[in-house]
Amino acid sequence: MNLNKILLVGYDGDVFDSNQWVRLDQLTTNRIMLPKDSPEFSEHLDSDCLLVKLGATVDQKMIDSMPNLRYIGMLGTGYGRIDAEYARQKNITVCNIAGYSTESVAELVFALILEYIREIARAKKQGVEGNYSEEGFVSSEIKDKIFGVIGLGRIGGRTAEIALAFGADVSYWSRNRKENYEQKGISYQDIDALLKKSDFITLHMEFNKETEHFLDNDKIQKIKPGAVVVNTAPMELIDIPALEKRLEKGDITFILDHSDELTEAEAKSLAKHPNCIMCPPIGYISKEATLAKLDMFIDNIENFIKGTPTNKVD
Amino acid sequence: MNLNKILLVGYDGDVFDSNQWVRLDQLTTNRIMLPKDSPEFSEHLDSDCLLVKLGATVDQKMIDSMPNLRYIGMLGTGYGRIDAEYARQKNITVCNIAGYSTESVAELVFALILEYIREIARAKKQGVEGNYSEEGFVSSEIKDKIFGVIGLGRIGGRTAEIALAFGADVSYWSRNRKENYEQKGISYQDIDALLKKSDFITLHMEFNKETEHFLDNDKIQKIKPGAVVVNTAPMELIDIPALEKRLEKGDITFILDHSDELTEAEAKSLAKHPNCIMCPPIGYISKEATLAKLDMFIDNIENFIKGTPTNKVD
Repeated sequence: MNLNKILLVGYDGDVFDSNQWVRLDQLTTNRIMLPKDSPEFSEHLDSDCLLVKLGATVDQKMIDSMPNLRYIGMLGTGYGRIDAEYARQKNITVCNIAGYSTESVAELVFALILEYIREIARAKKQGVEGNYSEEGFVSSEIKDKIFGVIGLGRIGGRTAEIALAFGADVSYWSRNRKENYEQKGISYQDIDALLKKSDFITLHMEFNKETEHFLDNDKIQKIKPGAVVVNTAPMELIDIPALEKRLEKGDITFILDHSDELTEAEAKSLAKHPNCIMCPPIGYISKEATLAKLDMFIDNIENFIKGTPTNKVD
Repeated sequence: MNLNKILLVGYDGDVFDSNQWVRLDQLTTNRIMLPKDSPEFSEHLDSDCLLVKLGATVDQKMIDSMPNLRYIGMLGTGYGRIDAEYARQKNITVCNIAGYSTESVAELVFALILEYIREIARAKKQGVEGNYSEEGFVSSEIKDKIFGVIGLGRIGGRTAEIALAFGADVSYWSRNRKENYEQKGISYQDIDALLKKSDFITLHMEFNKETEHFLDNDKIQKIKPGAVVVNTAPMELIDIPALEKRLEKGDITFILDHSDELTEAEAKSLAKHPNCIMCPPIGYISKEATLAKLDMFIDNIENFIKGTPTNKVD
């Protein structure tokens, strides 16, 4: 049982290495690659396999337009914009990739925090200009600060462990209590207390219907003045107009790496605030994570064909 | 027993807070502040107390020129350019400040490494320009890399512990074996093996006559191709022409934060290499470290006057 037509949307020839392309081409004789939002999409609605990238929307309308669709593959962990519930009803298998980027994202959280509190970009820029004076640098330490982790899954858990090693006072809020982390000295806090007390706050929740706008106006108002908030998770977790209202006050710093998933209007509006630091989505990017991710992505398709799908979303 | 004349060299009115200035002025009725290399220095050779900043040279000639000198205070840990041996012979007390910046420097090591491997400065720059594409970002992780610490004192020890929390394979070389760290999983390596195997190398040695040019041509040639070498310790530990020869090959990256201590010729010459990242001396700078440092600096002078000197260098 092979695939009739694999449609890749938003990919280019550089995504996979040659070995991975060979593996993919063993699964079909008809492989189509289209850029994002291509008008040619409508010519390939007969595809039985749709491969998308992080941030892609696959809604009921799109699913209904593809009568032969049997498999949707997400090259990433977050699949909040795929209507997985509706796909299941229509017996379409949706697979994502999980766990490949745990370390990569957890390390990025500290890369972003430390760059910010130590002003490394500025230090390097000065260095390039031949100005080696430390004048005007005011930085702080992670040690002894209150470090709050929202969502203690794989990535949140690793982030909490590393913060502990830096000597921070680490607490978490998560839907469920995590005994194993509490034994390590990571204490549970209700979400309001965590927001009010933490000097550093980092978000590690999945995006789904329940978590959409989790950080709403009420919660955003509770964030401790002076806090640095890092979001390496989808921006859908956040009520953006409410965040802007708080950024306007100038008393918190917000750092995000999912700028590409914002609408143009949202991005432009956030970019107006100097206390909002916007990066491309580099959390998942590391040589190690990329290799693991691509292999897992093709494994998933092969396993679906064999009738033993892996990483099916629930 | 108070001081007749306190001479501060290279300080300005912003160094201390008002409370600290009051404390200082209780110790003398004659306080002189001069910029670095001021020609007016020769007018104050009668001072009995000389306060200098990190990187200052106090050699035999200068000591001999100040007949009343009883105390030299170093606002920092490193005192390699003070001839402490000669000062002791002349019964002059030399005090420095130790331990105030352990966390600040250890955290900076990770700030520098993570900024480099995740290209945070570039990500932020792109963000400011409204370009949120991750294209072209290639990064790597600390996890599972070989992380070598040279010099396992206070700062080196904390750096090794944090690297361990990131999941690195951490080893160290130090003059003396450190059982307590080895029990935590930080393994001893002879210096050549450490240089040959480590993906990340970080230097944490004091500068003194024995450690001058510790990283000599022979050792620099042994550094693993592809390695990232961080030096938050004095640049005197390194044979700079030999380092340049290696940088020329383009197969290592060197990151330093003591650019201000280089001669102008050295700095210009190093700056030519794109694989040499030069920062101002920001390792010691954090609100926490600065407050602790300044208090300790004045404590030292007060304790000297009381006849119970603290932080005397050995």
